[in-house]
Amino acid sequence: MTDHRLAPDVEETAAAIASMEIRGAATIAAGAAEALATQAREADAESPEAFRASMRAAARRLRETRPTAVSLPNALRYVLRRMEGRSVEALRESVTDAVAAFVAQLDRAQEDLGQVGANRLADGDTVMTHCHSTDALACIEAAVDQGKHIEAIVKETRPRNQGHITARQLREAGVPVTLVVDSAARRYLNEADHVLVGADSIAADGGVINKIGTSGLAVNARERGVPIMTAAQTIKLHPETLTGHTVEIEMRAEDEVIAPETREEIGEIAVENPAFDVTPPRYMDAIVTEHGQFPPESIVTLMRELFGEGAAEPWAEP
Amino acid sequence: MTDHRLAPDVEETAAAIASMEIRGAATIAAGAAEALATQAREADAESPEAFRASMRAAARRLRETRPTAVSLPNALRYVLRRMEGRSVEALRESVTDAVAAFVAQLDRAQEDLGQVGANRLADGDTVMTHCHSTDALACIEAAVDQGKHIEAIVKETRPRNQGHITARQLREAGVPVTLVVDSAARRYLNEADHVLVGADSIAADGGVINKIGTSGLAVNARERGVPIMTAAQTIKLHPETLTGHTVEIEMRAEDEVIAPETREEIGEIAVENPAFDVTPPRYMDAIVTEHGQFPPESIVTLMRELFGEGAAEPWAEP
Amino acid sequence: MTDHRLAPDVEETAAAIASMEIRGAATIAAGAAEALATQAREADAESPEAFRASMRAAARRLRETRPTAVSLPNALRYVLRRMEGRSVEALRESVTDAVAAFVAQLDRAQEDLGQVGANRLADGDTVMTHCHSTDALACIEAAVDQGKHIEAIVKETRPRNQGHITARQLREAGVPVTLVVDSAARRYLNEADHVLVGADSIAADGGVINKIGTSGLAVNARERGVPIMTAAQTIKLHPETLTGHTVEIEMRAEDEVIAPETREEIGEIAVENPAFDVTPPRYMDAIVTEHGQFPPESIVTLMRELFGEGAAEPWAEP
Amino acid sequence: MTDHRLAPDVEETAAAIASMEIRGAATIAAGAAEALATQAREADAESPEAFRASMRAAARRLRETRPTAVSLPNALRYVLRRMEGRSVEALRESVTDAVAAFVAQLDRAQEDLGQVGANRLADGDTVMTHCHSTDALACIEAAVDQGKHIEAIVKETRPRNQGHITARQLREAGVPVTLVVDSAARRYLNEADHVLVGADSIAADGGVINKIGTSGLAVNARERGVPIMTAAQTIKLHPETLTGHTVEIEMRAEDEVIAPETREEIGEIAVENPAFDVTPPRYMDAIVTEHGQFPPESIVTLMRELFGEGAAEPWAEP
Amino acid sequence: MTDHRLAPDVEETAAAIASMEIRGAATIAAGAAEALATQAREADAESPEAFRASMRAAARRLRETRPTAVSLPNALRYVLRRMEGRSVEALRESVTDAVAAFVAQLDRAQEDLGQVGANRLADGDTVMTHCHSTDALACIEAAVDQGKHIEAIVKETRPRNQGHITARQLREAGVPVTLVVDSAARRYLNEADHVLVGADSIAADGGVINKIGTSGLAVNARERGVPIMTAAQTIKLHPETLTGHTVEIEMRAEDEVIAPETREEIGEIAVENPAFDVTPPRYMDAIVTEHGQFPPESIVTLMRELFGEGAAEPWAEP
Amino acid sequence: MTDHRLAPDVEETAAAIASMEIRGAATIAAGAAEALATQAREADAESPEAFRASMRAAARRLRETRPTAVSLPNALRYVLRRMEGRSVEALRESVTDAVAAFVAQLDRAQEDLGQVGANRLADGDTVMTHCHSTDALACIEAAVDQGKHIEAIVKETRPRNQGHITARQLREAGVPVTLVVDSAARRYLNEADHVLVGADSIAADGGVINKIGTSGLAVNARERGVPIMTAAQTIKLHPETLTGHTVEIEMRAEDEVIAPETREEIGEIAVENPAFDVTPPRYMDAIVTEHGQFPPESIVTLMRELFGEGAAEPWAEP
Repeated sequence: MTDHRLAPDVEETAAAIASMEIRGAATIAAGAAEALATQAREADAESPEAFRASMRAAARRLRETRPTAVSLPNALRYVLRRMEGRSVEALRESVTDAVAAFVAQLDRAQEDLGQVGANRLADGDTVMTHCHSTDALACIEAAVDQGKHIEAIVKETRPRNQGHITARQLREAGVPVTLVVDSAARRYLNEADHVLVGADSIAADGGVINKIGTSGLAVNARERGVPIMTAAQTIKLHPETLTGHTVEIEMRAEDEVIAPETREEIGEIAVENPAFDVTPPRYMDAIVTEHGQFPPESIVTLMRELFGEGAAEPWAEP
Repeated sequence: MTDHRLAPDVEETAAAIASMEIRGAATIAAGAAEALATQAREADAESPEAFRASMRAAARRLRETRPTAVSLPNALRYVLRRMEGRSVEALRESVTDAVAAFVAQLDRAQEDLGQVGANRLADGDTVMTHCHSTDALACIEAAVDQGKHIEAIVKETRPRNQGHITARQLREAGVPVTLVVDSAARRYLNEADHVLVGADSIAADGGVINKIGTSGLAVNARERGVPIMTAAQTIKLHPETLTGHTVEIEMRAEDEVIAPETREEIGEIAVENPAFDVTPPRYMDAIVTEHGQFPPESIVTLMRELFGEGAAEPWAEP
Repeated sequence: MTDHRLAPDVEETAAAIASMEIRGAATIAAGAAEALATQAREADAESPEAFRASMRAAARRLRETRPTAVSLPNALRYVLRRMEGRSVEALRESVTDAVAAFVAQLDRAQEDLGQVGANRLADGDTVMTHCHSTDALACIEAAVDQGKHIEAIVKETRPRNQGHITARQLREAGVPVTLVVDSAARRYLNEADHVLVGADSIAADGGVINKIGTSGLAVNARERGVPIMTAAQTIKLHPETLTGHTVEIEMRAEDEVIAPETREEIGEIAVENPAFDVTPPRYMDAIVTEHGQFPPESIVTLMRELFGEGAAEPWAEP
Repeated sequence: MTDHRLAPDVEETAAAIASMEIRGAATIAAGAAEALATQAREADAESPEAFRASMRAAARRLRETRPTAVSLPNALRYVLRRMEGRSVEALRESVTDAVAAFVAQLDRAQEDLGQVGANRLADGDTVMTHCHSTDALACIEAAVDQGKHIEAIVKETRPRNQGHITARQLREAGVPVTLVVDSAARRYLNEADHVLVGADSIAADGGVINKIGTSGLAVNARERGVPIMTAAQTIKLHPETLTGHTVEIEMRAEDEVIAPETREEIGEIAVENPAFDVTPPRYMDAIVTEHGQFPPESIVTLMRELFGEGAAEPWAEP
Repeated sequence: MTDHRLAPDVEETAAAIASMEIRGAATIAAGAAEALATQAREADAESPEAFRASMRAAARRLRETRPTAVSLPNALRYVLRRMEGRSVEALRESVTDAVAAFVAQLDRAQEDLGQVGANRLADGDTVMTHCHSTDALACIEAAVDQGKHIEAIVKETRPRNQGHITARQLREAGVPVTLVVDSAARRYLNEADHVLVGADSIAADGGVINKIGTSGLAVNARERGVPIMTAAQTIKLHPETLTGHTVEIEMRAEDEVIAPETREEIGEIAVENPAFDVTPPRYMDAIVTEHGQFPPESIVTLMRELFGEGAAEPWAEP
Repeated sequence: MTDHRLAPDVEETAAAIASMEIRGAATIAAGAAEALATQAREADAESPEAFRASMRAAARRLRETRPTAVSLPNALRYVLRRMEGRSVEALRESVTDAVAAFVAQLDRAQEDLGQVGANRLADGDTVMTHCHSTDALACIEAAVDQGKHIEAIVKETRPRNQGHITARQLREAGVPVTLVVDSAARRYLNEADHVLVGADSIAADGGVINKIGTSGLAVNARERGVPIMTAAQTIKLHPETLTGHTVEIEMRAEDEVIAPETREEIGEIAVENPAFDVTPPRYMDAIVTEHGQFPPESIVTLMRELFGEGAAEPWAEP
């Protein structure tokens, strides 16, 4: 592997992502894309081949900072796949155009998907939520902005009670909120017109990786006849799953589940605290993105369109 | 309605039940049955009719102390239905015999049903539990006593975390325990061989009224292919449901769900905290009682055998 | 087969049933039972055997008048099964007692089952109905009498539009009615809390034979998560199905489906017009009778208790 | 918004669509497309920008005539999306080519989809139909033309009995027909090899909007194990649903459901008469179009290929 | 435990059962019952207590010969539960009456259940079978005797191909047979009107223990919408399951699955050959017995009626 | 149709395919593609039109050799669809490039899909297999190569016992194997983490045509909660199904099912031996190809991308 000079900004961005100075799926994606634009502008390439090689090197540098962040490779894939031309100049332009398009889309993504999700809601509907997702909230808020009266049943979402954040933000948006424990979901599904969740990532087989409890909720929603949708920007589409990879589920600290002193009283027991679970596509009615709504079974087509086939890592040395 | 002299012990028992000095389903049932025996022994009846009337009066007195306690009318029904004979003496004997049989059964009930439930478990099985039920625990403990190795996945059971009690008792019984949040149920069902729950009461249509979250768990257990059983003594069979009555679900205090200070931060939201839900019989594989195991759809036959038709209140004035 | 002298009233009743002067399930049942009582009173039997034989002969005479009326053999079975005693006098008394009990039960049956069905309904519930059934209406009317506000979605029930009768009777009972075509059922199930139907007869395997369209409605009710119940007096329990017989479905006239002139325009087509269909027990939540509510899977036990094993025709010559 | 001169033919076509002189999904689509071709030919544009603007103006004019006709925006989208070129001449040619392609496809569409649907049917099959759809009939007729013996069970399809039209046309095509009431569907599904319906429109989430009763039929077909397909030309694909919009269901006149005089007898009741319902994709086995057959979950990809992303209205001012 | 003198015939019968000279569920049951009758006739008891004790001893002696034969304890339970009276004579008579009734029932059982099963079949029906069961065959043969035309799809039933026996017997009964491999079941379910199987035993929770492959067939039958019934005499009802015991599944020899020489070629692999599996009641439509047909969920009631509560072993020393 | 001179190699290849000298899906596909390349190189075309016509003629010649081989038309479609250019030279190059790409892909396909399938498996998983498929085996072998411990439950797959081949190859790959009869599938699904099958071909509606028994296994896998995947190279995608054609199922010889002598003993029975069945997409979790994994409902998009619309046969005379 030859050594390619990276623009100082690329190194800076890489460092900032690695140190989590830059964090959040959208911020990482935008930062990485813009670093590629900088590299394109500043790359001192003598030939198209050299330019391409330097772009790939920049992408590799950025890629390795956070191997599990799904939005990061998506940003790199989006841009590199659109790099084309026979001259350095043409290549450079294609990259900066792709970055501009990507960032513009990213800027609008939540608002756009909010509209799509809002269009699925009718005036007077009650929506059940799980955990806290700004994409999901964007849908409800857009519906309220469309003049619809929406009410919410908010599951508290143990162990970290992100439902409290959801409850507060919905209340601030003027949405009447009923807070319930997670176990009350099936009972309150009888009063819900929709279930609306976000996603940590979405797999090529249509599986939705989201906060633990989503899959059990989805099974109950189907049994109760209540439609359920996921709101997620396309940067959440997990390109590695195109090649069959399953998304590794983070196991979190025990003391999120039980206070150390309570646990001590109980004695020698194991505590398991998985952060996420996987909802199979057959229990999800729609995935709402900034590109419109999709049945989960067709999301793979959108993934391939935006980010290419999984196996082809566009930053790999040829 | 004529006035019947009640034995002082009946009045005392009634007062103790009303004041909750006597509490717990089995204790109430035993107390009420023994009060009837006392009344039978002490009733100074001149005729069989007078004896019967005085027994009905005693039953009414006891019945009215706790209108929602399901074991109380069951005890009264059990005894009064078995009152028979043409002389005061025969009637008296039939009552005291019925009380003796009822109390003897009650004494053995948990142990007997524990055996039945244990027989459904195999050596090496992992059992998922919800909430805390001594009937359910009796099954696991009996299985351990049978020499079987049993492991448990214990749901914490928000909002009151009775899973902690279950965890401790199972640990004390030598059962390895893994504690999880309620939302993790579907994921851990993949590792469970059985789901085992108790019951607050059981309806004639086969519905199982139990701690909120049971019905959602049962739906997930069916979807994951894991059998689920309810362990419940027959004093939990709800005779009023024979006539179509639905069991009223208690709504509990909000601060079990959310601490007042947290709630204040969130602002004006509703909090709902139902104590129980109803699992339809089609999602329950078996109900384990001291009389053996039953599919939920046939429990109505046992109810009628033990406690008579629902409409006939044996303490009613003729 | 020897010849037994039948009381003139028996012959009269038999003739009146045969000529459909006596008709309607309850009226036939009561008439047949009372004819047996008459026979018992007037039978001039010299021995218990002769008495029994004369009762069986009377039952046979009545039975053959309307081979497909399900309530008729039930009435005969109920009475003959309870005929017991060692003397003519005792036998006679047992028969007249059984007839009295049967008729008294029959008189109260609709009201009693109405209470049971009403208890399953909650204040504010919306009930979807199919066809017209006085047993089903009794449930709603009893709920209204209990002070509950009930609304109804009434399917018109082609081809004979009995929904119009249901609509009128419910309106007269003060129940707000929405009339819809049968095809609109799934859509309006989203607004229904219960589906409530009657039954033409009920089979030992738990199948409910009712107006064509019931089974499709039940499948949709399950899919939409709406509970469905059948209201039916126990004279509708079909004793021949205990021995595996399936209930024959009447095919009715084509012109109920299409006007002859319209048909002529269409030309050579077949028209089929089955009166009933069979709803499997797994799609029915409860059967509401005057003896309480039952899961359909346990109705066979009630059938055997009331009317004996199917194979044993108590009127058969020994 | 600047004013663009529209070709007189565009105005005429717009007027004719608005006045319903031009009606029927295919006729409207063809008319609108041809009006765009006229505009392209006659537009007196000085620059590519002016040409594009004038085309958009023409499209807007046509679009506003019938806001709910799904085929109209599809025609406009199809053509405008294919408008490309750097000169007026090239743009003009691209438009007239696109119109020609669109109209040619439209002319062949029903025949092409008929072949696809026919290929799914086997010799000797019995097909159940709901309502009247020329696309669905085209499939059966093509199967007959392929030499297959096909029989049909035709649901009458209340309230307007379009099943009578279907019955007549099938009879004329030599298909033996059995007419049944809508409620008889589940029973006759036991004798059907396929269910075949048309569509009013098809949503991006795979939902099929069709005559009321389709969704209940589809649920029953799945329960009975009978495959069900929708036959629909791609002009029925509803592009607005790409952005999450739900299709508004027309409520029709009450007297389609009940004759005014009958209603008067019944008294104060509501009558609801929705024209359509929505069948979720999970209950539909295939959608048959002139481009081949598709699982409903993948129809969104075809929609995007033909008509672009929903949010991008190609006639909007930039 | 005191020593009771057993009649020589009891010892002989016990020895013959132990040595498998007496075998087959019905033959064992009849033999055991008749041995009890012999014991009753020959028991030289001085008191009712002594008589009872001697009967219990005889039952114990018989019971211990074949601990896993389900019909054996059923025969003993049936008889001992019906032993009653205050004198030795009365006790003796009750025993011999019970034995006579039991044996008479046993003699008629297959014929009686054959009628019940036959009544469920209609003229022209096609029945799919699994394995070989004389109870199941009795149903089809009775249907043929009723003049119905029945056809059969016979699964070969690996590993022992008992389907070949079924095929031959059906052919001899004049039933057209199509033989298929077990894997072809789902495909041929499309042509079947019923699935009909026998049972090795039936559990109190409604589970049907039958030849391996039955449960998978039942799941497919439900998915294809084909009703499935079990034909089984009541001596197959497993009384130990009343107390929750699961039926142990016999693992059979590997060489039933694969010839030793073939296996040698393959090398080191495990081969498992379970004889039976358990079909949950929710996948079985009816259990056909000599006492009529029952939904599997209500079979527990019949078990209790015939053989008593599981826990009470009537041969136990008091 | 004009006569086009075909390169001698085309004729040779056609003959070799027809005589089954060339056989196996991949070998046929590669042979046909390379024959097209030869034709392109050797075609002595004077005009682009002539070149195109000669290529179509070559494709037709190859196509007609084996009308039912699914990989053959796929190879031809792949190449002809990518034929483009305005000069003979450009056309020739496009063809030889397409052939090179196709053959290169084909060479890597099994290895690539093996990686994808392996990625779906986790260390310690147990996989159930049906029949013998090198694509499916490639997944397990790749997982083993990734260092994962995999165990297998191998169904013998009557009638031809291809499970024995699978068992041997897995054993050779170091995978512990348990062999079971096909009927034991549901029982052993309780111990399986995945079901993995190959495919004979895959239809546009997502149906998987594979060895008889696959669909019944898939239904059971869903019922038991075990994910199931198909491993199949894209040359198995059946382009004719795009136009609705169903795949004809081969009926094989009876003596695969039953030895002639055994059959003779049984007498006049029919034996049916279909080679394949069709698994609906709703029972299949993923299709694993060399282009990644896909939900079955989206496979149609991949088919169209690779091989074009079904109706357009690129070898047809214009």
